[in-house]
Amino acid sequence: MSIQQQPVAGNAEDAVASLQQRAAGLDRQDRLAHCRSLFIGTDTPLSYLDGNSLGRPLRRTPEDVAAFIRDGWGGRLIRGWDEEWLELPQAIGDQLGRAVLGASPGQAIIADSTTVVLYKLIRAALAAVQDADRNELVLDTENFPTDRYLVEGIALEEGLTLRWIETDPAAGVTVDQVRQVTGPRTAVVLLSHVAYRSGHLADLPAITQAAHDAGALVVWDLCHSAGSVELDLDGAGVDFAAGCTYKYLNGGPGSPAFAYVNQRHLATLNQPIWGWMGRKDAFEMAAGYEPAPGIRGFLSGTPAIFGMLAMRGTLDLIEEATMAAIREKSVRLTTFAIEIFDELLAPLGVELATPREPAERGSHITLDHPSFSKETVAAMWEGDVIPDFRSPRGIRVGLSPLSTSFEEVLHGMLAIRDRLQG
Amino acid sequence: MSIQQQPVAGNAEDAVASLQQRAAGLDRQDRLAHCRSLFIGTDTPLSYLDGNSLGRPLRRTPEDVAAFIRDGWGGRLIRGWDEEWLELPQAIGDQLGRAVLGASPGQAIIADSTTVVLYKLIRAALAAVQDADRNELVLDTENFPTDRYLVEGIALEEGLTLRWIETDPAAGVTVDQVRQVTGPRTAVVLLSHVAYRSGHLADLPAITQAAHDAGALVVWDLCHSAGSVELDLDGAGVDFAAGCTYKYLNGGPGSPAFAYVNQRHLATLNQPIWGWMGRKDAFEMAAGYEPAPGIRGFLSGTPAIFGMLAMRGTLDLIEEATMAAIREKSVRLTTFAIEIFDELLAPLGVELATPREPAERGSHITLDHPSFSKETVAAMWEGDVIPDFRSPRGIRVGLSPLSTSFEEVLHGMLAIRDRLQG
Repeated sequence: MSIQQQPVAGNAEDAVASLQQRAAGLDRQDRLAHCRSLFIGTDTPLSYLDGNSLGRPLRRTPEDVAAFIRDGWGGRLIRGWDEEWLELPQAIGDQLGRAVLGASPGQAIIADSTTVVLYKLIRAALAAVQDADRNELVLDTENFPTDRYLVEGIALEEGLTLRWIETDPAAGVTVDQVRQVTGPRTAVVLLSHVAYRSGHLADLPAITQAAHDAGALVVWDLCHSAGSVELDLDGAGVDFAAGCTYKYLNGGPGSPAFAYVNQRHLATLNQPIWGWMGRKDAFEMAAGYEPAPGIRGFLSGTPAIFGMLAMRGTLDLIEEATMAAIREKSVRLTTFAIEIFDELLAPLGVELATPREPAERGSHITLDHPSFSKETVAAMWEGDVIPDFRSPRGIRVGLSPLSTSFEEVLHGMLAIRDRLQG
Repeated sequence: MSIQQQPVAGNAEDAVASLQQRAAGLDRQDRLAHCRSLFIGTDTPLSYLDGNSLGRPLRRTPEDVAAFIRDGWGGRLIRGWDEEWLELPQAIGDQLGRAVLGASPGQAIIADSTTVVLYKLIRAALAAVQDADRNELVLDTENFPTDRYLVEGIALEEGLTLRWIETDPAAGVTVDQVRQVTGPRTAVVLLSHVAYRSGHLADLPAITQAAHDAGALVVWDLCHSAGSVELDLDGAGVDFAAGCTYKYLNGGPGSPAFAYVNQRHLATLNQPIWGWMGRKDAFEMAAGYEPAPGIRGFLSGTPAIFGMLAMRGTLDLIEEATMAAIREKSVRLTTFAIEIFDELLAPLGVELATPREPAERGSHITLDHPSFSKETVAAMWEGDVIPDFRSPRGIRVGLSPLSTSFEEVLHGMLAIRDRLQG
């Protein structure tokens, strides 16, 4: 590093010692500390700072899944569908609604991948817009890539105009911006609740209201908020929402997504992929498609039962812990990470790409530095610290409230400092 | 039962004894007999005649999956994507192509559910048809329900006309029928290779040729043939195909589907669900969708890694056994089942709804009787025999060449006879 950082070396050692004490104290006070040991790998020195990409498995998951293969799949065979599996997408959806989404029963379901769920929801939202003059779809430049790509394709096939909000990554998408671009031409607003890069937490209730005031419908992407931020979708009057289950819900790599459809849209729900599992009386196999009533009409193909098993353990744990306690720990974790940043990384020229106000961020922070690259993170992955890289120059530090300890955060961020000093 | 069956009771006992000897002999001669013990539950008295709905798990699967959760997901965490998982849909697709589909590498991929894959393939096929006058989609009345429902939705959104071939279930869809309905207005022909109810095996090469002669493209649904019937998709010049992996490929309930896109369509492949995993350089997360080259452009969302684990064991086994040997055993199994039908069930008024010519059937047979109902099959499920029911009055007997024994077939069909005599 450049010379001007050298004089602070002694102070930095003091600072680290003080941060270590602070981490130990925060871990002692952590009311969710007992949850950490329920996850595989938390007894190793590994600092895992990417649970917001892929959450750790619970310790119970290998045996839960193996038992399902032996006794459920292997023992009940085809009978399992009638006995339990056919209802599982809705049963888990209801539990998710209760534990995580703030959704009363019958509005959430597990299905497909996030991308396919978003495709179906956006098409369903467009179908629900009666006014032919509303041919604009609003989204923002900080939206997750799949959301951006999807709507390009949909705009092409449906003859829609995309209205892009140019979001300042540090400030995040604001209610004012949404008010400015929405109006009598707006059909649908598609936004991410927590921005995948900056961690900015959008004001979901106010933006939903703004969209509704303009006569538009909203589709929220909850990938980075489900399981880390308290949600009240029913209370906010959200129209549609989607999210993934492999981040804070620990469903495993590529576990199926969830969809939320507000009950006021269920009776007229019109999603484009008409498959047997979404049909009324699926096993009649009768001629002609008629959607099943309620959220079940959102289904298309055979539900990925195998991929739904792991998330159930986390949902049980979340119900026990409560989302309020999880969010509280999440705020403490990100606050502590920012404290470490201020002490150790800001002096090295690192910039915080995440809002400082706790109410404006989710459960990850992003640290920018001109020297950060894919290779920086790849080198860290070979050691015992695993953050993620986000283009063009960000190291993203994800903090999973149920499995991350404060000492783990410090350990990981010290490794980032060491990279800069290396 | 009615009185006229009574006199054959003595003969029937002789017939059963003779069939038992025959079953034992066939099992002794079975070159794939050793495979059966590799599956869970084959050491119980259960007669499982529904592997064509949900194949049994391999004995290795619980530990394979548990080890993946502990060491792969739990140990490699997010690093697993770069190290292996991102390539898995194509790697397994290539193995499937080699072992099962008759497809050279780079044309098959694991993704989504069968329904979603078919939606994307049909839309891609329609996009590949350049001629705007071709606005008809041909399918048949014996096609699987999800195929029929899907195209209704697609026809509505794309302004297409559906041309239905009224298939005689016993005879199956024929080349002549396809020639009759296809012509200068035909865009796409969508058919099932093996009919889900009757088990009729369509003449895939000749029908593909007939569609091509009419200037149309074909999409084949291989759900009931992949893993039971020899396939040569490349040789037949098939355009697109889809199938599921939870039947003869033992992927587990709701395991992801596969897609095949003939290489001549890859350069211009245009599927409608534009997601991050199908984009060129996905992790650049750059603005604007550009499809990844080759079959990867078929992907939309995050691949269901968890759901891909179980099928790998079966693909290894199929490569070892060869599809030729599997098909040979399949024919022996269905031939024996028809022999039992002739001896024991035909005299009781049961009708065979499946072609008698081995070259015209897949690996299941369907038995119709006025008294057969959902309740008949539900009652059998409470015992140790598991066939399936297919409306309006069919008991479907599915025979999985790798895991079904000849004695198991006889045991199961005796239970069907007992129902009729009960």
